[in-house]
Amino acid sequence: MAEISGNSAGLAPIGVFDSGVGGLTVAREIMRNLPNEHIVYFGDTARVPYGSKSRDTIIRYSQQIIRFLRTQQVKAIVIACNTASALALDEVEKEFDLPIIGVIRSGARVAAAATVNRKVGVIGTESTINSGMYDQLIHEEDPGITVYGKACPLLCPLVEEGWLKDPVTETVTRRYLDELLEAGIDSLILGCTHYPLLRSLIAGIVGDGIRLVNPAYETAKELERLLIQKNLINTGEKAPVNEPYKFYVSDAADKFKRFANSILPYDIETTRKINIEEY
Amino acid sequence: MAEISGNSAGLAPIGVFDSGVGGLTVAREIMRNLPNEHIVYFGDTARVPYGSKSRDTIIRYSQQIIRFLRTQQVKAIVIACNTASALALDEVEKEFDLPIIGVIRSGARVAAAATVNRKVGVIGTESTINSGMYDQLIHEEDPGITVYGKACPLLCPLVEEGWLKDPVTETVTRRYLDELLEAGIDSLILGCTHYPLLRSLIAGIVGDGIRLVNPAYETAKELERLLIQKNLINTGEKAPVNEPYKFYVSDAADKFKRFANSILPYDIETTRKINIEEY
Repeated sequence: MAEISGNSAGLAPIGVFDSGVGGLTVAREIMRNLPNEHIVYFGDTARVPYGSKSRDTIIRYSQQIIRFLRTQQVKAIVIACNTASALALDEVEKEFDLPIIGVIRSGARVAAAATVNRKVGVIGTESTINSGMYDQLIHEEDPGITVYGKACPLLCPLVEEGWLKDPVTETVTRRYLDELLEAGIDSLILGCTHYPLLRSLIAGIVGDGIRLVNPAYETAKELERLLIQKNLINTGEKAPVNEPYKFYVSDAADKFKRFANSILPYDIETTRKINIEEY
Repeated sequence: MAEISGNSAGLAPIGVFDSGVGGLTVAREIMRNLPNEHIVYFGDTARVPYGSKSRDTIIRYSQQIIRFLRTQQVKAIVIACNTASALALDEVEKEFDLPIIGVIRSGARVAAAATVNRKVGVIGTESTINSGMYDQLIHEEDPGITVYGKACPLLCPLVEEGWLKDPVTETVTRRYLDELLEAGIDSLILGCTHYPLLRSLIAGIVGDGIRLVNPAYETAKELERLLIQKNLINTGEKAPVNEPYKFYVSDAADKFKRFANSILPYDIETTRKINIEEY
């Protein structure tokens, strides 16, 4: 790839990927906070979910997706998936020569700064929690913080079923959160990109005394700092192209579109399906 | 492949595959009913679940798995997954020159024979229900039967979480079954290989008046008829090999083993991981 810099580089899109629709909560924050930036989003709907899969597999999937995103001339990549950020970021950072950020570091930073009693809770998928990555990055900020992780495998399926304010979802969430509340946490990281969609339900359970940290928002802010630092930010007016946001999936574009249209502030017109195993 | 027949063919294993662990309920029935037969089981744990994915994707995955199973010299294949049986059986039957059966036809037959009021319920994944395959095969038996299908996307995650007798699982299952019960069904097909693990909970909800049909059991019986008819059954004593049952997965062998050991009547010693995308 030829060296690009300044605003000619700035016009290139940001690559954002996730195992499916969850990462759209991150894309939404990037759209809000960096309205000049173009985005190419990839949702790996053929292989979703990532949360119960192994490190080797998630690394292989992430490599394939980054190879695909590079064909779209992206200038930077956001891994908008906690599981892939936890398991694959280290590996792909070494392998690819473009800026890549995940969603975990910025969430960990904010939680470390927010906690007063130094007891932080993290909820996420099985793989994210078992990776210990939130613990590690929070301890880099402050080794004295105790991190309480809890895997919540049913929350993604409940969100995808659309039961966002359902008594069943409340019962399940309450059960998952019980031990964190008993431990006395004062901050809780929503460590899966689906969970911001349960934000009001979770806030109702934990009450006002606990600060909810949404890594999606923090990641958009981190991306902005990174783009400025690397001289990659789009400093001009919004470029006059028809599609500032492009969406690719590995399966069932229609279903993705329905879900996306319920999350994003506008309706997606086109979603393209590709065979990700070819990359 | 050289032509094989009689008991030299009979010694070859049966290939059994599923998106993950669910198909073990079918493997278990084959072990019980055909104790002389060897089995090579493949669970596609890297790409599980299949239930929300499209026909194209499920066909591609099934083709890869069948190509892998052929490298294991299988004499016949059982698609121990309702979704893959619904979406891919027709295609792979045309493509591969060995006997392949799914789990849907035999369940449909038994339900059609069992119903008295000609109202049959089917529960399964979204893709299985949307395929209309149970309706089609039941109507081939008796066009006068009304089939009531209901997708139950949360039941697999609840089974995989191990909440088999949990009040949450009961509430969710009851909600899914409500409309089938109101419709007055007298037979209910457990149209996903995970659901036999919820059999007692479901029986408690629907009561004695409704016959539960387990396609896993019916499929083992159909396999027996097929092997006899094709002269492929193992007529001899159990062959003196160390591993009558072999297990392959596409991801995270340990997790698979834990779940398998809770389903099967014995403990699996070895599970091999392969990269299914290479087939």
